[in-house]
Amino acid sequence: MSQTAYRTHHATEVTEALAGDKVTLSGWVDRRRDHGGVAFIDLRDTTGLVQVVIYDEEMARPLRSEFVIQVTGEVRLRPEGNENEHLATGKIEVVAESIDVLAKSDALPFQVSTALENESENKLPGEEVRLKYRYLDLRRPSMQRNLKLRSDMSKAARQALDEMGFTEVETPTMIKSTPEGARDFVVPARLVPGSWYALPQSPQLLKQLLMVSGVERYYQLARCYRDEDFRADRQPEFTQLDMEMAFVDQEDVMAMAEKVIAAIWKAAGYEIQLPIQRITWQEAMDKYGSDKPDLRFGNPLVELTDFFKNTPFRVFQAPYVGAVVFKGGAATPRRQFDAWQEWAKQRGAKGLAYVVFAEDGELKGPVAKNLSDEERAGLREAVGAEEGDAVFFAAGARTTAQALLGAVRVELADRAGLLKPDEFAFTWVVDFPMFKSTDDPDDDDVAIGHSKWTAMHHPFTMPSKDWIDSFDKDPEHAMSDAYDIVCNGNEMGGGSVRIHRDDIQDRVLDVLGITDEEAADKFGFLLEAFKYGAPPHAGIALGWDRAAAILAGAESIRDVIAFPKAGGGRDPLTGAPAPISAEQRAETGVDYEPDDEE
Amino acid sequence: MSQTAYRTHHATEVTEALAGDKVTLSGWVDRRRDHGGVAFIDLRDTTGLVQVVIYDEEMARPLRSEFVIQVTGEVRLRPEGNENEHLATGKIEVVAESIDVLAKSDALPFQVSTALENESENKLPGEEVRLKYRYLDLRRPSMQRNLKLRSDMSKAARQALDEMGFTEVETPTMIKSTPEGARDFVVPARLVPGSWYALPQSPQLLKQLLMVSGVERYYQLARCYRDEDFRADRQPEFTQLDMEMAFVDQEDVMAMAEKVIAAIWKAAGYEIQLPIQRITWQEAMDKYGSDKPDLRFGNPLVELTDFFKNTPFRVFQAPYVGAVVFKGGAATPRRQFDAWQEWAKQRGAKGLAYVVFAEDGELKGPVAKNLSDEERAGLREAVGAEEGDAVFFAAGARTTAQALLGAVRVELADRAGLLKPDEFAFTWVVDFPMFKSTDDPDDDDVAIGHSKWTAMHHPFTMPSKDWIDSFDKDPEHAMSDAYDIVCNGNEMGGGSVRIHRDDIQDRVLDVLGITDEEAADKFGFLLEAFKYGAPPHAGIALGWDRAAAILAGAESIRDVIAFPKAGGGRDPLTGAPAPISAEQRAETGVDYEPDDEE
Repeated sequence: MSQTAYRTHHATEVTEALAGDKVTLSGWVDRRRDHGGVAFIDLRDTTGLVQVVIYDEEMARPLRSEFVIQVTGEVRLRPEGNENEHLATGKIEVVAESIDVLAKSDALPFQVSTALENESENKLPGEEVRLKYRYLDLRRPSMQRNLKLRSDMSKAARQALDEMGFTEVETPTMIKSTPEGARDFVVPARLVPGSWYALPQSPQLLKQLLMVSGVERYYQLARCYRDEDFRADRQPEFTQLDMEMAFVDQEDVMAMAEKVIAAIWKAAGYEIQLPIQRITWQEAMDKYGSDKPDLRFGNPLVELTDFFKNTPFRVFQAPYVGAVVFKGGAATPRRQFDAWQEWAKQRGAKGLAYVVFAEDGELKGPVAKNLSDEERAGLREAVGAEEGDAVFFAAGARTTAQALLGAVRVELADRAGLLKPDEFAFTWVVDFPMFKSTDDPDDDDVAIGHSKWTAMHHPFTMPSKDWIDSFDKDPEHAMSDAYDIVCNGNEMGGGSVRIHRDDIQDRVLDVLGITDEEAADKFGFLLEAFKYGAPPHAGIALGWDRAAAILAGAESIRDVIAFPKAGGGRDPLTGAPAPISAEQRAETGVDYEPDDEE
Repeated sequence: MSQTAYRTHHATEVTEALAGDKVTLSGWVDRRRDHGGVAFIDLRDTTGLVQVVIYDEEMARPLRSEFVIQVTGEVRLRPEGNENEHLATGKIEVVAESIDVLAKSDALPFQVSTALENESENKLPGEEVRLKYRYLDLRRPSMQRNLKLRSDMSKAARQALDEMGFTEVETPTMIKSTPEGARDFVVPARLVPGSWYALPQSPQLLKQLLMVSGVERYYQLARCYRDEDFRADRQPEFTQLDMEMAFVDQEDVMAMAEKVIAAIWKAAGYEIQLPIQRITWQEAMDKYGSDKPDLRFGNPLVELTDFFKNTPFRVFQAPYVGAVVFKGGAATPRRQFDAWQEWAKQRGAKGLAYVVFAEDGELKGPVAKNLSDEERAGLREAVGAEEGDAVFFAAGARTTAQALLGAVRVELADRAGLLKPDEFAFTWVVDFPMFKSTDDPDDDDVAIGHSKWTAMHHPFTMPSKDWIDSFDKDPEHAMSDAYDIVCNGNEMGGGSVRIHRDDIQDRVLDVLGITDEEAADKFGFLLEAFKYGAPPHAGIALGWDRAAAILAGAESIRDVIAFPKAGGGRDPLTGAPAPISAEQRAETGVDYEPDDEE
């Protein structure tokens, strides 16, 4: 595999067994040290480092960091005491007989050397510079590992799916706009002036059509596109592992997906215990204030609505009161509690009420004095705290208050160092509501109809069996056969049983306030397809960038994407997006007006 | 693998070994026959057919073609004499105990039954109808086989590449427009009004940047986009298996690609003899009148320029005269030779001169009387024909005349039944010219510069070693390190050694007439990257749709694409492309004018 026109071996293939042999290597000058007239080069290639020794000063003179060189020389064991234990090739070195400079390098805008890898993380320039010189940023060994990990993940997933009888099918990316909760990117169609393609937000409708076509088990690592306002860690284009099966129910899909996830993690050396635990959506909201709970640690929310039902404290006279314990928080200085108030306000809350259970048994903190004697006496037991702990409260609308407490819970764990990147806590979240209100101000999804209800997952999700007859009579409470897979507080993927009958699909579109005309225009082909024998089907998609980031322990999905966009969808490397010429614009047909027609 | 909520087995898993067992199956009613009050259903699923016998008339009554049903019943051996040898499950049948109709079907617009597969190819409706109901068209077993074959190809290629140490890297599809010989599709960037992304014509520059980053061996099944006028068997989006390697030369890439191709063909049951033969571009043009010669048969072009150098026949007083033998063509009736004239005229030629070597030794045909005695005497030997053959001639500019003869050669072979779809003749075409004239009227590529020269492959192709110093002094004759892989007269892929030095790249852009300003704007990031230690690198891409079509023996790439576009880039299924709303248009920012700025 290694032998090419430019090398006989890769760097780390040069082992003691080759001592005395002549080898030819190629790669980058990772580091150069000079010592008593002798030059020592760490030569870096895709496999790692090997030390090259150059006695000839002429030969050594031109070599600088990141020059690309080809070295021919003899392998020898390093002199005793000069071995490097940290290096796979630490017992040998190559004595250069000839060196060709294949390409020179200017001084780099930032260091990428393997030798500096551990220290250099902190010395990295800002992300804008890293992205502008992405080809240099990617030379860093940690980025090379991320790319390799992602490649290994894809391989493991494909192999698992292949063993389960899946067919990989490529679906088109220039399609009809089908509103799915976000804005479409659109592409003008030159050959049909005034008309546009949309880039897919997901292959949802196409994979459903594949089920109607009898493919039965489909998968694809699918490129998807969403034109959203830039938010931290979102990308305008992203990849999902998209899977769909016919003649299955929710259990079948979850069992399949667990095998895929286990295979991916195994590729990175982790064993996952199957089956993965489950939690209902309601329980996740109540216990963790999130539909994507981080279960690497416990410390669930405690509901105190009942406990405070007769409270004299006006703030706690609310539809919901809850608390989170701050283990050992009693020793926290006052100014840190003040900082927590700021933290909460930045999240849009009014503040963050708290009490402290002092070691001496006394109840302290600003809230304490507002409580009744009975409440003060029973509070510690009610919240499950111990002396020396503090407790944070939130009161108000259930959803909002739980979300705040959920965020407090995670923030506490983070500050306590409990969010270990190489520990993985998976859970399924099941029993989702079918619809959510379009009034929710926290929600920035685009509603796809004109009613007060929008789809919690998407409009093609099957109501659960109990609700098939009645979901449209009581949308607020209707449940669906949807499921999310969550890891370490991240929604790693989600799916659902799909509607395969046009009568049910019609009723769902009615609830969403989509007119018959709109339905015919947007989904007509799907409703039509359902008339010709559509099998029951269900599926799931895993967010591939997110999964890779979790598995790599990366802070951002940008660290597991070769060429990600910066804020605003800009690419500092190529300068995209950019203006186009007047000629190019004319050709796109975007300025076409029907009157122009001959 | 088969057991799900809806079935215990797939159809073809029901074998004699299960006789007496109860099974539950799900699938489509492929065909129904009634016989003496008993209904026989061919149940179809993704694996094939199984016969279901229904004695209960009530149970059988509702069942129609393409209904989706779930059947539970007992497996029994078919009565002696009723076995069906053509069916994997032909020795058994399932006696239905209960049947659930999971989905009904209206009468289909065209038949998709497996039973009709062999006869039905001719009864298929026009392509517009097939594409409108693509989910039904895909139910046909031949289409299911094509999708499965394509999936198997991808798997085989990935495995071969994995074994050779390749890393799969996903590159972005919303990029900077980089002219590569065709029109870009463009996407307005809402967040940077007035700016656009381009969809990639290939990941060319990105994969070169990956080489600069040290990935060394990259591959991707990459979606690519070209906004070309619709021509037969082109698609606006297509897939290529994109591969690139660092520290390699042309030989390394060709050896690697041969292993990939052999693995793909092996996945379909064919052994390819390696190494694949080679032909120079010049020889391909001279012998076959094509840079993608079909080598399933011989019958090369014969050059007669010298032979006719003193000819009295005005038509043959040309820079080039050549011929192709029509084996046994002497018996062809006159009106068929007239039809050949028409055929040639439709290809833009003036006609197609010919002579006939009659069995009696006489030279006939319209051209014969124009030749000198000497020419008449020596012609048969000069073209290598026998008595009973005919010979077609072309005279004129070398390229044009050879192209016509090349087409005649293929047409003759086609009519003689020599173009067998399950025979595969591969060849490498090597030693390409580096540049071609932009004056060529046959060429519809978009020139990327302003000179009379454009790149034969693309502007990033390395001149061959002998031409590195002089390619810009003699662009007409300069050769490049480019190579195409050809199968059965199709260009299945191509690649080249790339330029990895900014000085050479600058000089190539100069020849193409690209100004420094344009170069900086379009390729500035690549030229910049070359300043920081770019390794020598080379690559190749295989057209995946074309490769699948060749391997499947499909007439069109549309038969190996799940949801292809019809003429003009339209999708008869979804109605894409389509107008967008005024609101959506406003959001895209295409109508933004700098004056609008606050």
